[in-house]
Amino acid sequence: MKPLEALHESLHKRVLVEMKGGRSFRGVLDAYDQHLNLVLSSAEEVVAEEVTPHSGMTLLRGDSIVYISP
Amino acid sequence: MKPLEALHESLHKRVLVEMKGGRSFRGVLDAYDQHLNLVLSSAEEVVAEEVTPHSGMTLLRGDSIVYISP
Amino acid sequence: MKPLEALHESLHKRVLVEMKGGRSFRGVLDAYDQHLNLVLSSAEEVVAEEVTPHSGMTLLRGDSIVYISP
Amino acid sequence: MKPLEALHESLHKRVLVEMKGGRSFRGVLDAYDQHLNLVLSSAEEVVAEEVTPHSGMTLLRGDSIVYISP
Amino acid sequence: MKPLEALHESLHKRVLVEMKGGRSFRGVLDAYDQHLNLVLSSAEEVVAEEVTPHSGMTLLRGDSIVYISP
Amino acid sequence: MKPLEALHESLHKRVLVEMKGGRSFRGVLDAYDQHLNLVLSSAEEVVAEEVTPHSGMTLLRGDSIVYISP
Amino acid sequence: MKPLEALHESLHKRVLVEMKGGRSFRGVLDAYDQHLNLVLSSAEEVVAEEVTPHSGMTLLRGDSIVYISP
Repeated sequence: MKPLEALHESLHKRVLVEMKGGRSFRGVLDAYDQHLNLVLSSAEEVVAEEVTPHSGMTLLRGDSIVYISP
Repeated sequence: MKPLEALHESLHKRVLVEMKGGRSFRGVLDAYDQHLNLVLSSAEEVVAEEVTPHSGMTLLRGDSIVYISP
Repeated sequence: MKPLEALHESLHKRVLVEMKGGRSFRGVLDAYDQHLNLVLSSAEEVVAEEVTPHSGMTLLRGDSIVYISP
Repeated sequence: MKPLEALHESLHKRVLVEMKGGRSFRGVLDAYDQHLNLVLSSAEEVVAEEVTPHSGMTLLRGDSIVYISP
Repeated sequence: MKPLEALHESLHKRVLVEMKGGRSFRGVLDAYDQHLNLVLSSAEEVVAEEVTPHSGMTLLRGDSIVYISP
Repeated sequence: MKPLEALHESLHKRVLVEMKGGRSFRGVLDAYDQHLNLVLSSAEEVVAEEVTPHSGMTLLRGDSIVYISP
Repeated sequence: MKPLEALHESLHKRVLVEMKGGRSFRGVLDAYDQHLNLVLSSAEEVVAEEVTPHSGMTLLRGDSIVYISP
């Protein structure tokens, strides 16, 4: 199994995405590519314990991502 | 669906673009490429809650982008 | 022997992964690729001696990794 | 339309280029390439509100650029 | 001679590896690749004069390396 | 015209090269490549208004360069 | 002439290598490649005016290099 296949198993499920610089997102994983660019729906952004809901899709750039966790 | 296809659905619609370093933009997405270079029109730049309107197009370099949201 | 072959010998074993920025993970190595993207299961995240268990898989982005150790 | 085509429309017109690290340039866009390396003529460099005129051409390295705006 | 050939001569010998961010390693070089990813055995990690021995192999990611010395 | 062609016009002429981190160089441009690696002769290095002359050639690594100006 | 050819003329001669982060090296250039990875022999490392001699070869990773000078 390769890491991207493991990510495939999280499609359409809620994931936690930790970003560089202390920002994180929780949302449903709707799409990904080989750069780890991700699309989340129903996402919440968390910075310093402040939660901001996002409407619609949120596209996260892969090179700002530290880890992805269910 | 791939992330760039999700971005395609935001073409000609208003998006929020969060950049590295605490800068963000709101504007109409007029173009994008596979590096996530973006062109916004009718853009507003926000740094530390100070809003600066941009006339004409604004080209954002993809590698400074953290996320794109409607 | 190449470094990725050495990593192969750690598959399904517990590893320590030190990340940039003072974060580290302990978990079972379930997958890796040539970018050093890793999938850990039963992972624990450690930041400043505070331990957070992760359920399910955790995908670590290779370019945030400093070293991997058994 | 792709972002580089949008940039083509700014050729031989004045643009504002915001660089990483708080530096910006105003000048006439004389050339660009796919890395967003730019050549400006009649450029002014602005750092912390201090303006320095440049004679001749100024070549800006693409990976230091945050955005380009008319 | 190319740099990677010089590295070949250090195979199975003790090397010092200086990493970005003030971390260094001493250990026996067991493997390397063209990205300068390295595998050390019998490694000791040194951060701010504090020495931590590593058991088994340690895989160092090439892009965190500043220099390698015998 | 492409940016590298504009650079070609500066060959064997004095240029100012601004580097990341507050360092700059003045010297005669003797060579360049597509990464913007540059060779200067008769170069002076300037850091915080302190000028250090360099004898012989100085090779500047392209990815540390912010801009090149005559 | 290309920058790497200029570097070829420094082979087996003493060079000064300035690294990112305030570290520099003086030594004899024994090898280089297209990434500007370098091998120095009889090298001295200088950090904050403290000089440390290196025995044997020292391999410097190209992407930590700012400039190379005779």
